[in-house]
Order: sequence, then structure tokens, then C-alpha cells
Amino acid sequence: MISLADLQRRIDAGDLTADAAIAQSRAAIAAHEKSIGAFVCHDPNVRAQSTGPLRGIAVGIKDIMDTQDFPTEMGSPIYRGFRSRGDAAVVMLLKQAGASVIGKTTTTAFASLDPTPTLNPRNHGHTPGGSSSGSAAAVAAGMIPLALGTQTGGSVIRPASFCGVAAIKPSYRLLPTVGVKCYSWTLDTVGLFAVGVDDVARGLSAMTGRPELLLPPSISTPRIGVVTQDFAGAPDASGAEAVRIAIAAAERAGASARALTLPEIVAEAWRAHPVVQEFEAHQALAWEYRENYDAMAPLLRERLDESKGTTPAAYDAAMGIATRAQHALAKLFDEVDVLLTLSAPGAAPRGLGSTGDARYNRLWTLMGVPCVNVPALIADGGLPVGVQVIARYGDDAGALNAARFVEDALARL
Amino acid sequence: MISLADLQRRIDAGDLTADAAIAQSRAAIAAHEKSIGAFVCHDPNVRAQSTGPLRGIAVGIKDIMDTQDFPTEMGSPIYRGFRSRGDAAVVMLLKQAGASVIGKTTTTAFASLDPTPTLNPRNHGHTPGGSSSGSAAAVAAGMIPLALGTQTGGSVIRPASFCGVAAIKPSYRLLPTVGVKCYSWTLDTVGLFAVGVDDVARGLSAMTGRPELLLPPSISTPRIGVVTQDFAGAPDASGAEAVRIAIAAAERAGASARALTLPEIVAEAWRAHPVVQEFEAHQALAWEYRENYDAMAPLLRERLDESKGTTPAAYDAAMGIATRAQHALAKLFDEVDVLLTLSAPGAAPRGLGSTGDARYNRLWTLMGVPCVNVPALIADGGLPVGVQVIARYGDDAGALNAARFVEDALARL
Repeated sequence: MISLADLQRRIDAGDLTADAAIAQSRAAIAAHEKSIGAFVCHDPNVRAQSTGPLRGIAVGIKDIMDTQDFPTEMGSPIYRGFRSRGDAAVVMLLKQAGASVIGKTTTTAFASLDPTPTLNPRNHGHTPGGSSSGSAAAVAAGMIPLALGTQTGGSVIRPASFCGVAAIKPSYRLLPTVGVKCYSWTLDTVGLFAVGVDDVARGLSAMTGRPELLLPPSISTPRIGVVTQDFAGAPDASGAEAVRIAIAAAERAGASARALTLPEIVAEAWRAHPVVQEFEAHQALAWEYRENYDAMAPLLRERLDESKGTTPAAYDAAMGIATRAQHALAKLFDEVDVLLTLSAPGAAPRGLGSTGDARYNRLWTLMGVPCVNVPALIADGGLPVGVQVIARYGDDAGALNAARFVEDALARL
Repeated sequence: MISLADLQRRIDAGDLTADAAIAQSRAAIAAHEKSIGAFVCHDPNVRAQSTGPLRGIAVGIKDIMDTQDFPTEMGSPIYRGFRSRGDAAVVMLLKQAGASVIGKTTTTAFASLDPTPTLNPRNHGHTPGGSSSGSAAAVAAGMIPLALGTQTGGSVIRPASFCGVAAIKPSYRLLPTVGVKCYSWTLDTVGLFAVGVDDVARGLSAMTGRPELLLPPSISTPRIGVVTQDFAGAPDASGAEAVRIAIAAAERAGASARALTLPEIVAEAWRAHPVVQEFEAHQALAWEYRENYDAMAPLLRERLDESKGTTPAAYDAAMGIATRAQHALAKLFDEVDVLLTLSAPGAAPRGLGSTGDARYNRLWTLMGVPCVNVPALIADGGLPVGVQVIARYGDDAGALNAARFVEDALARL
């Protein structure tokens, strides 16, 4: 894989030109894209910018984000050939930081359920996850050092776990969603995929102009609360094992870890998530669903069919639960710095008919808190399994710091 | 003017066909559009739908909202001829309720400061207000019974006041902004213009599928808190007089009214509004500003030039103030049902070089609370002046109820 931090260091030291760094991605795409299918389209002639912290960094953009230089097709024939006039806000943030947009990565239709043709670089017989399938796979296959995705249920953290890369779903609206196709305005969150936690931190810091998001020279030792999310059902053996290993490694490295029970209102919020998501989707995708019904992807269409009867009153109640749960969750962070929990039920499921299950992710999306995936183990079939490190709303720096601590601890096992 | 409630009653009674109702708007546009200039484009062949509560209602859509059937030009040459693929969520809500989109109304460039060619139907020498200039003027000129606008500072309530129509800026995100050009995601709010409060309530209820937003058969008597917003400076004589008259009328009709002082944190939020607005605008309009600088409207460009240095830390501080102010403001509504304050400093200023001042509006946009404009008096030059009735976040029904009470009371003066 191509490490963003490594490229930055070599470019800064004068050991690598920004153009050579981009050329490395171009060559890797030429070598691997045919077998992985992570891109909808890419520009074989893309060049480096000469300034900015992300000069020389080739970035893949999930194909629900507007780009002036590429079509934006939303993973759906309904948007075949669609050209936005300009760039999404996050694409401009990347360009202003010096990055080069190398192409658009595959997305399930409207960032929902229907799988893309993208393969998991770790094992072609298993899903790469979704909905940001192409972004996770493109980084995991070593084609690019940075990619953007979005999460409404679990579409950043889950594919990162399945593909064995780091990723952050930042605090709600730390990154703008302007120019990003909406599924649910209360939930949609732009996130980043990169090789490791330091790479993700560098990308997010450069995009937001927030130096405090860079990892500090000395990583502090976190107090960790371990959360099992029993309300979401039991994990697979590999998911449970990933959490055990991560905790053991963190404790060996000096961190404190203790099991925490989430307040009942937080479990209620987990149950409320789909109500919020689908009620808003019926408005956000009204034109697509009502005027292009036959062209809608089947799994998404079925989900919308099933949720058609959701009432404003049910939505208002779900939003009320979410607000109360956010307050209750905030209190937990008086006792611990971060929470650690499953990124997914386990390793990527076999087959390409499903992108896997977001049941361990959706609560955190509704809570708006920053989540970082850290690869924790390699299960049978060479399939990676991650854990997620979660901090208080707004404490993205704390989430990245603790995720790096866990990553370091795992590397020393 | 064309009353939505009146059309609905006549259509329901079988005294008017939905097609005849639409034809009335078509004829009015043919008669008045040439002198007012409220539309960017309109469809002289638009037809009525046969079902839905808004069948027979011709609606004007602010030209920052995506429409499949019309270009969406954002009031800027940068978007000349731009065609979205589908309809904005609010356009679909209208269509699903049976309304007919008759055309796109003028907007200042990206819903900001630079005036459109639209004239104020009450007095052609004075601004109709902005940024939803065309929507306010089209209703005021009697061309259409309903129009959509947006408010980020004061772009719904102010033009409604200047043009002498009712309008609601609903609670934040009661109406979705999906497919609406973003200026500031924390502030942008879709609103409705119509002749009177009942008309506005019917439109909002039909769009949202919330029957509780319809006015009840018997309007309850509100406890009114009167707020002067001294932190925003002194009003013109006509603005102050509008508040005096509205209060006197409401008291005569049996309402209680008492002066309230807003907590200091709320005044701080008033000062924080521009920080939130411009920091987000620099991201939302990054492509337009950075890659089309020369084509940007001059007043907007100047505002962006001036706010270029706003830091993430200043933005975070402003957002923190906004949250604390929302909590402090909510407590005020334990003592009163609604607040009543200025909709604008006074009557529409002379000339077309400015759309007027949003200083009495911006606080309420940041607070996310529902605001309803009620025309209160006619000042010199035939210029109307409104007052705004403001309720607790989420209590749009309460805001409409009290606004109707004030409207009734003023009519009986």
C-alpha cells in the first residue's frame, strides 16, 4: 500500500517529486485496477500540484461527490453521464490542500445496499464492503494513498475493516457535504480512507486546515471504555477476537480498559437510526424513487418500499431519542477518553451479493461522534478485521490519538 | 393577490377546476410579469394535477432549487443554462401534494447580496428585498398563490415584509434542503410565501404531510413576549410603529404582551451569525469563488474577500455560542408562547442597489426557530411593514397560530 505520510516525508525531504508520487499511483492503477475494479473512471494524465501539504497525493473520490472534471453517476443508471457544474466542497478542500483528484471510486447506488463490481483486494471471493466500496478497495490494493467516502449507516468504517485499511468518520459536519448526494441529512458524513492512522490524520488536518488534528510527537495513553453493543446482536468469532486482541495490546502498552454498559437511551437510539435514515431518504431520493422507480437498484428500492409508511410523528420521536442519547453518551466521556468496539460483525462475508452489515456502526453515525477504524487481525482467508475507536463529539484529535495508540500497540504484539 | 386558501375552498366546493385555478396564475403572469420581473423563466403551458391538497396551486420556485423541468441558474452567470438531473426534495414535496411548478423566481446570486432586476409590486422605486426577491414579489403582485424561498440571514422574512405578504421560515430542517444550493448548511432554511397566514399554513402542512400545521378552527390567545433586539441597533420609525400597532391590536384582542430582554448569550449569538455564515460559505462556494472569481457577483465577492481569514477556531467558538444561546432561548418559551419583533428595520429602502438589512432576522435563523411574517401597516409610499412572530424550535404550529391571531387582530383595527 502507498502511505500518505511516507510520501509526504519523501517529498518534503526532496527524495521524491510530487509528480513522481502521482506517477506511482498512475502505475499502480494501471497494474491493479483491471482485477479490482475500484474506479468508475480515472484520469491517466493527472498531474501533481506544486504546493500544499497534499501535493503529490493522488485521491479517489466516491462517485456520489460532484467533480468538475469527471461525471458523477451515483452508482445508478439514473445519473449516467451526469455532469455537475463544479466540485463538491470536500473536493475543493483537497485541491486547495494540493492534492490531485485521480478518479471516481465505485459506490453502491446512492450509497445504499446494492453491491458494486469492486473486489476485495484481500480475497476476491469476499465483499469489500459498502457503500464506499471503491475507496476502501483502491487504498487497500495499493493504488492510491487517500480516498473519500461517506457513511450514513456504516459505509466508511465497515469497508475499511473488511479491506484492512485505516479510516475516519469524523464528527458530524467537520467535513461539509455540499455537493455530495444526500441520503439522510442527519446522518451522511464524509470520511477518509488511508493506510494507517497517521495517514488519515494528515489528510483530515490538511483538508480542514486544523493542525491540531495531526498526531502529536508523543501519543498519550488513553483510558478506554470497551463497548459490546449487545442490542445489535452477537458478533462473529473473528469480530469478538479483534476486540479482545486490541484490548490486550492496548493494556500491555499501558492503557486502562474497562467494560462499559451503554445507557438504555443509547440502545433506543440504535433502534431509532433506521427510522431517521429512511424517513429522510424518502425526501432526499424522492425524485429518483418516484419518477425513476424501474431504474432504482433493487435492494435500495425494496428498503424504500418497506419504509414508505414512516410517519412524521415516528421521525420526530426518533430524532428526540437521538438528541437524548447524544447527551447521555457525552457523559460517558467524563470517565474514559475513548470507546472501543467492533467495526463490523467480523471479517468480510463470502460472496459479492451483500456488502455486509452496518449494525455495529449505525449508532455512532446517529450520535455524530468521530470513529476511527484500526485493522486488528487477519482472519482465515487473509481477511482483515478492524476495531473502531470512538471519541466524544468534536474530539477528532482524541479519536485519532487513541487509534494510533492502539495501532502501535497491535504492531508491537 | 391570489389566496391559496380561497382557491382550495373553491376547488373543493366544485366552484373552480384545478385547471382554471392554474389558468388564473398563467393570466396574471402574462399581465404583470413584464413590469415586475419576478421570474427567471416560467412555463405558459403548465397544467394542473388532478389530485392532492395543492391541486390547482401554481408555485414559484427560487432559482437556487433544482428542477427537472427548468434550468437552475443560481442568479449567476456561472450557472447559465445549468440543468440538474432531478428535482430538489422540496419541489418533489410540492408535486406529491398536487401543486404545479409554474416557474423559477429570481434570486440574488447564490442567495446573497447582489440585487436582482425584480421590482417591488408595492412601489417600483423601492427594493422588493432579497435574496428570495422573485418569490416575494410574485406572490405580492398577485401572480401566484405560493412560492418557495430560502433564508440564511433574513431572505424570507425581510422580502415578505417589504412586499406585504405572509411568509414562514420554519424550524430548521422541517423542510429538507436537498437539491438547494448551499450557502451555509447550519443556516439555510427553506421557507414559504403566500398571501396570508392561513395560506402559508396550508402550504406547509400539505408539503410536510403534517395536519397539525393547519390552523385550528378556533385560534387560541397567545402570551406574547416583545423583543426589541437592541444589540442590532435602532429600527426606523416605520419598523418601530409596526411593532407598536401589532402589540396594541393583539392586546385589544385579548392577548397578553410584555417586554422581554434576551439573555446576553443570545446577543452574542447575533454577533456570531456572520462568522458561521461566512466560514461555511467559503466551503460551500469554494468552487465558485476560487475557480470563477471574475464571474462572481460583486457584493458577494466582496463579502467573501473580507471574511477569507475566518479561522476554524473562530468558527468553533461561534458554533458553541449558538448552541448555548439555543438553550437559553428555549427557556424564554416557558414564560410566553411566542416572541414578537421586527421583520426588518422598516419599510423597503428606496432604490434597487441594496436588498435591505437582515439585522433583525439573522439571530432567529441561527437559533433555528420558526418565524412568521405578518404585514402590520402601510407606510408612506404604499410600502408595507411586517412584524415577525417567533415560537420555540419545533413549534411551527404555535408560530402559525399566534401569527394568525395577530393578523386577525390587525384586520379588526
